[in-house]
Amino acid sequence: MGAPIVSRVRPETPLLEGLVENGLLVPTKCQGIWGRGAVFERVVGAIERLIDDETRSDGASFLRFPPVIPRPDFERSEFAKAFPHLGGVVHAFVGDSDRHHQMQERIEAGGDWSEFVKMTDCVLTPAACYPVYATLEGVLPEQGRLFDVSSYCFRHEPSSDPARMVAFRMREQVRAGTPAEVMAFRESWIVRARDLFERLDIPASPAPASDPFFGRGGRLLALTQAEQRLKFELLVRIHLDEQPTAVMSFNYHQDHFGRAFGFTTPDGAAAHTACVGFGLERIALALFRTHGFALEGWPGAVLSALKP
Amino acid sequence: MGAPIVSRVRPETPLLEGLVENGLLVPTKCQGIWGRGAVFERVVGAIERLIDDETRSDGASFLRFPPVIPRPDFERSEFAKAFPHLGGVVHAFVGDSDRHHQMQERIEAGGDWSEFVKMTDCVLTPAACYPVYATLEGVLPEQGRLFDVSSYCFRHEPSSDPARMVAFRMREQVRAGTPAEVMAFRESWIVRARDLFERLDIPASPAPASDPFFGRGGRLLALTQAEQRLKFELLVRIHLDEQPTAVMSFNYHQDHFGRAFGFTTPDGAAAHTACVGFGLERIALALFRTHGFALEGWPGAVLSALKP
Repeated sequence: MGAPIVSRVRPETPLLEGLVENGLLVPTKCQGIWGRGAVFERVVGAIERLIDDETRSDGASFLRFPPVIPRPDFERSEFAKAFPHLGGVVHAFVGDSDRHHQMQERIEAGGDWSEFVKMTDCVLTPAACYPVYATLEGVLPEQGRLFDVSSYCFRHEPSSDPARMVAFRMREQVRAGTPAEVMAFRESWIVRARDLFERLDIPASPAPASDPFFGRGGRLLALTQAEQRLKFELLVRIHLDEQPTAVMSFNYHQDHFGRAFGFTTPDGAAAHTACVGFGLERIALALFRTHGFALEGWPGAVLSALKP
Repeated sequence: MGAPIVSRVRPETPLLEGLVENGLLVPTKCQGIWGRGAVFERVVGAIERLIDDETRSDGASFLRFPPVIPRPDFERSEFAKAFPHLGGVVHAFVGDSDRHHQMQERIEAGGDWSEFVKMTDCVLTPAACYPVYATLEGVLPEQGRLFDVSSYCFRHEPSSDPARMVAFRMREQVRAGTPAEVMAFRESWIVRARDLFERLDIPASPAPASDPFFGRGGRLLALTQAEQRLKFELLVRIHLDEQPTAVMSFNYHQDHFGRAFGFTTPDGAAAHTACVGFGLERIALALFRTHGFALEGWPGAVLSALKP
């Protein structure tokens, strides 16, 4: 842990150019929104199957949610308390034909049409695990619960960096139970993750981390989080000149979600939770960065581990 | 075409109860947002593979986009002109720590916090084909283009009906070219679709249709659309007592997108487009409705066609 990450990225082609020229990603007019080509999607699909194989005997409850969640659940989660700058809430038109006509004129004139839309009950999913907690109200069974989820997530941090998309897929394993159960779950995954990335021949190293909390109080929250070792990330080299990039995170929430959504262990205490997230696009980017932009050039061992 | 659809739905279990009791769908606090269970997702995955097999030799360009598209593309598409009531635009917090504090207080008090968020450059994807048109600027090659896309789409029409989700997946084949090319494409798909649904043993019938245009002018637009036979749907019985439900649509846009996004055929004329959409959740619902809530009870021929 904390060992230096050996850089094996290929310097000959800049990342973005390589991705676009090889049809892996397709730029759009909006920073952070990318189209994905066939080979990129084959690799993402193969990563999902690798995780399927890895987790098959864990006995997780399989759930899938759409890229929007109910606003009441979002509010209850306190995501906006910690990360107001990253969340997205859906607004929709409300009004009659006259109002519609005015809105359309405003749009055609290139003006601000936000006065014509109102907040709906839908919020963009901020992390794949969020909709799970809302399903847990009440008392957990003995040994708690384990979930497997995956969805498109939204983070409003527009950037030209393909490793920082506003809409990206996150696969997660989510554990709810006693502190000992969820800590054991998280620790075991830090080991499993290293093994998975070894099979992909991607140099990766776990490190303590903190979330990008907002504002004045954010620095303190981040320090506390680091001090209590609540968050770890698995770091890889996607960019040559910059800090390493997190492709996985291992998060211990203590009883935050148990309290917020009202679920307890059989002894009546607010349950603790932890989640382990795979950033699917970032893992794909790390594969292309490490092994090249064409699958044909990838090492045989990686191709047989991944079967893209 | 237009022949009555034989009803083979099973009246013994109401649809919603059957779906929820069998773990196929998981309700949330928000109408139209549903979790999906393992078997539901196996069936959706099998429908995607059936479409993969059906289309493999068509030579389509494969593209995948996230559930949000750039607002400039949304505005250019004129979706909000026709369907202002269905679109969703993403708003996000802008401000400093004080403003954040005020917003958080408002959220905790259960109040309206919309004054703290501003319109972003991201709009929920209204249909899977929309991001394609923005990639086509310029002159199409001879014989035009064919695309295969699939994504989560958003329609703001909250309902307790599981066949009317606010977030659902749409797989589409999209053709751009001369009027003759795109009409031939659309006609061929009406035939292919019937054959596909025969293999699934789901009684289905194509019928002329019109879109749910908004407001005073909407009725006229719908009449014109029907008169010009621009839209067809493939209808099945999901509800016993109500109108049949569209599981596919076959849409001829004339030169709407060619003009809006500036792409032409080699002779310089604005290109015409058509799209054929599969409503993946609705097809899955039709399968469960027709063949029962447990895969074990499905006819052998359906299981071998679909391999769920």
